[in-house]
Amino acid sequence: MTAPLDELVRVLPEGTVVTDPATSDGYRHDSASFCAAGAPLAVVRPTTTEQVQAVLRWATAHRVAVVPQGARTGLSGAANAVDGAVLLSMVRMNRIVEIDEVDQVAVVEPGVINADLSRAVADVGLFYPPDPSSWEMSTIGGNLATNAGGLCCVKYGVTADFVRGLEVVLASGEIVRVGRRTAKGVAGYDLTRLMVGSEGTLGVITQATLALRPAPEPALTMAAVFDTTADAMTAVARIMASGLRPSLMEFLDSHSIRAVQAYRDMGLPLDAEALLIAQSDRGTLAAADVAAMGAVCAELGAADVAVAEDAAESAMLLQARRLVNPAVEELGATLVDDVAVPRARLVDLLAGMDRIAAETGMLIVCPGHIGDGNMHPTVVFDRGDPAAAERAQVAFDAIMSLALGLGGTITGEHGVGLLKRTWLRQELGETSYALQQGIKSVFDPLGILNPGKVL
Amino acid sequence: MTAPLDELVRVLPEGTVVTDPATSDGYRHDSASFCAAGAPLAVVRPTTTEQVQAVLRWATAHRVAVVPQGARTGLSGAANAVDGAVLLSMVRMNRIVEIDEVDQVAVVEPGVINADLSRAVADVGLFYPPDPSSWEMSTIGGNLATNAGGLCCVKYGVTADFVRGLEVVLASGEIVRVGRRTAKGVAGYDLTRLMVGSEGTLGVITQATLALRPAPEPALTMAAVFDTTADAMTAVARIMASGLRPSLMEFLDSHSIRAVQAYRDMGLPLDAEALLIAQSDRGTLAAADVAAMGAVCAELGAADVAVAEDAAESAMLLQARRLVNPAVEELGATLVDDVAVPRARLVDLLAGMDRIAAETGMLIVCPGHIGDGNMHPTVVFDRGDPAAAERAQVAFDAIMSLALGLGGTITGEHGVGLLKRTWLRQELGETSYALQQGIKSVFDPLGILNPGKVL
Repeated sequence: MTAPLDELVRVLPEGTVVTDPATSDGYRHDSASFCAAGAPLAVVRPTTTEQVQAVLRWATAHRVAVVPQGARTGLSGAANAVDGAVLLSMVRMNRIVEIDEVDQVAVVEPGVINADLSRAVADVGLFYPPDPSSWEMSTIGGNLATNAGGLCCVKYGVTADFVRGLEVVLASGEIVRVGRRTAKGVAGYDLTRLMVGSEGTLGVITQATLALRPAPEPALTMAAVFDTTADAMTAVARIMASGLRPSLMEFLDSHSIRAVQAYRDMGLPLDAEALLIAQSDRGTLAAADVAAMGAVCAELGAADVAVAEDAAESAMLLQARRLVNPAVEELGATLVDDVAVPRARLVDLLAGMDRIAAETGMLIVCPGHIGDGNMHPTVVFDRGDPAAAERAQVAFDAIMSLALGLGGTITGEHGVGLLKRTWLRQELGETSYALQQGIKSVFDPLGILNPGKVL
Repeated sequence: MTAPLDELVRVLPEGTVVTDPATSDGYRHDSASFCAAGAPLAVVRPTTTEQVQAVLRWATAHRVAVVPQGARTGLSGAANAVDGAVLLSMVRMNRIVEIDEVDQVAVVEPGVINADLSRAVADVGLFYPPDPSSWEMSTIGGNLATNAGGLCCVKYGVTADFVRGLEVVLASGEIVRVGRRTAKGVAGYDLTRLMVGSEGTLGVITQATLALRPAPEPALTMAAVFDTTADAMTAVARIMASGLRPSLMEFLDSHSIRAVQAYRDMGLPLDAEALLIAQSDRGTLAAADVAAMGAVCAELGAADVAVAEDAAESAMLLQARRLVNPAVEELGATLVDDVAVPRARLVDLLAGMDRIAAETGMLIVCPGHIGDGNMHPTVVFDRGDPAAAERAQVAFDAIMSLALGLGGTITGEHGVGLLKRTWLRQELGETSYALQQGIKSVFDPLGILNPGKVL
C-alpha cells in the first residue's frame, strides 16, 4: 500500500510528520520484551485536537493503520509499530489546561507527564494518586490507555478510578466527549471506562478530566522480614482483614531480596524468604497504624520488624522496593509478568511459581503489589542463549495459566498489547471475547486503530 | 403478537410464571411519576441463573420483550412494563453467596436487598458503602442496573465503584462473566462498567462480586443554618477545597426547611435560606473534622452552627435531611429531578431554580447531595389540576436545560429510563448517542431487552 502521505503533510504544520527513519525508528518500540515491531510509514506529532482529527480523517480515507503512542514506557507492546502504520505520538499535546480546587478536577492533554501533573496539583494541596513506576516518564494519555496501576492502588485504586470524562477522536475523525466533569452522572452507557484501558484500539484521547483528592499526610513505613513466605502471606491477609487501610503494601520474595542486597548493601538478610513493606498516610493516626501492622508481623514470627518514625526512615525502608527493578536488570535479560490473584490465593501463586521455576530451570524473581494480589514474577535469563529465551517464554506462559487457575487475571496493570493477546481469549471466554470484538467494530469499523493489539 | 407462553411455563418450575392480572398489575410500575406503563404478557420470577437463561432463550426465539426488575423503587420508569413484555422479576434470586473477609468481597445474587447485604457485611466488620435512600427496599441488582448513588457518595463513590465482576445472561440466553474478583485487572475492555447503569438494556445480571471496605467509625455530624444560599454555597466550596473529606454533605433549601418544620417540629428557623449538614467518619479525627467544618460555616456568617458530640446528637442533626422526602410528599404531587453540576456552578443552579419557579409559578423544593453537586429539585403541584401538571413538566425540563448549560448532567443518580429518554440525546450529542446505539446492538441485536428505555 502506498498511502498518499503528501496529502497529510500538506494539511499539518511543518515538522508534524516525520518520515526520516533515523528519527522514526526510535518510535517503533515500547518497553516490552519479546514483542515484534513493524516498519512504520511515518511518525506524526500533533499539537492540537484538530490535527489529530486531520490524521484520522486521512487514515480513514486511505485505510492507513494508526498506532497512538505516549512515552512508550508500556510493557505489553501495545505502542509498537505495525507495518505501514502512522505512529501518532501524543507527547506534544502536553498542556495542563486547568486545575480546579473547588471541584477538585484537572483538565489535561494526553501528553502531560504523570509526574508533572502530580507536582502541579501538589502545589495547590491536591493529589493525583495513580503512580505507575514509570511516573517520571509516562504520559497521562498512556496511563489512561493502559489503565495504569502503581503502588498507591491498594488504598486509592487505579487510573480508571480518577477519570471523569474524556475527549476522544474516533477512527472516523469525529470528536466525541464521553463522561462528564461532575462527580456523579448516569446518563447513558459508561463509554469513559470503555476507553480507559483500551490501548488505543477504540479512539485517540485528546483531553481528560481527572478527579483529584486532598493531599494526604506524608506516609510512615513499616518493613518486616520473614523466614517463611507463608507467614508473610498470613500477615498480609491479617492486616487487610483487620480494618487497617495501608496506603502501600509491597512484597519482595527471597530472590528479590538477594538481588537488591547484591545491587546495594541495604543490610537485608540473605537468608530471608520474604520482605513486607507497608505504609499508612493517615496523618496523626499513621504512627499507630504502622505500629499495628508491625505488631501483626511480629506476632506471626517475623525475624525483624522496623517501624519508621519519620519521613527519612520511611523513605529508607521503601528504598528496597524501589531498587528491585534496577537490581533485577543486573541479573540478565528479563521477561516481566503481571498476574493478579485473590489475596487468599497468594500462597498458592508463590508456591506455584517455585514449581514453575524448578520445572523450567529458570530464575523467577517475584516482587509485587501484594496488597492487591498483583505480582510481577520476572523470568531472568541469558539473552545470548536462545534455548533459555524459549524456556523463559514457557515459564511466562505457565505463570499466566497458574494465575487463571487460581481465579486471577493474566494482567493486573500492564495490559494485553501484543504480549498477552493469545491469552486474552482464554481469560475472557468466547462469548465475552465476541462482545469485545463487536464493540471494537462499533468504534472502529475499518479496523485502522492499533490493529493487532488487544483483540 | 401471541407468544407461546405455554412453552415457557413448561420449562420453568410451577409458580415461576404468573399471568393473573391481579398479581401482574402490581409489577407494571416502578416509583417514577409521569411514566407510561404497558400491559405485560406475564411476570416471571426465576430462582436460578438457568431459569433466567430459559426465559431469554424463549424470548429470543419468539421475539418477546423482557423487562428486568428489582424492587421497582427506581425513579425513572426504567422498570415499567412495555406492552406484551415479560416482566423478569429478580427478587427471588436473593442469596448472599459469600462474604470473603481477606479479599473483602461479597458475592451476591441480584435480588438481595441492599440493607440485608449492608447488615451482613457489618456483622463481620466490613462495609458496603452504596446507600440509596431506598436501601431498606431496593435490590443490589436494581442498584447495579441504575448505578445507584446515595448519601455516602461524596466520600465513597457510587455503586459502580464497588463492582468487581458480574455474571450476566445476554439476550440470547448465553452466560457471560465480565470483570473479575481481583482488585486490579486490565484484560480487555471494561464490560463490567458498561453493564452497570445500563438499566436492563444490555443483559440480565444474575450474580455480582462486590468490593467491601473496613467498617468506618461512627460518624459525627455538623449542621449549619444560613441566611443566604450564597454563603452556604461558599461554605461548601471552602470545606471541599480545604482538604477535609466529609463522609456526607447534604443541603436543604428554604422550601425544604419549611416543609420539614411543618411536618415535624425540629426547631428549624422558618426564615432560614439554607441548611448544610455534613459528617466525618474518621474515628478519633472526626470531632476535629466537624468542628473545622462548623468553623468554616461560622466564619461565613452562618446564623446557627451545631456540632454533635456523639452518635445520638449526630442522628438528630441528620434527621432533618431524612424527613425531606415524606415532608415534601405532604405538600402535593411531586416530580423529582436529579441534576448534577460542578460544585463551582451550584450558586448558578440554585439561582436558576428560583427563576424557573417564578416563571412557571411552581413550588420547587430543592434538597440535595450538595457535596457532589447532585441536587433533587422537586416540582410540587396539585395532582388534580391538569394545567399544574403541565407546568410542572415545563419546570422539570427547564431544570435539565439549566443543568446542561452549567456543564452538568440531566441525571446524577436516578437514571434515564423513560423519564429522561428524550433528554439523553441532547446531553450526549449525536456521535456519542450513535456509539451507544451501536453497543446496544452488539449486546441485544433483536432489541428485546427493555425496549424503549434509555436509548
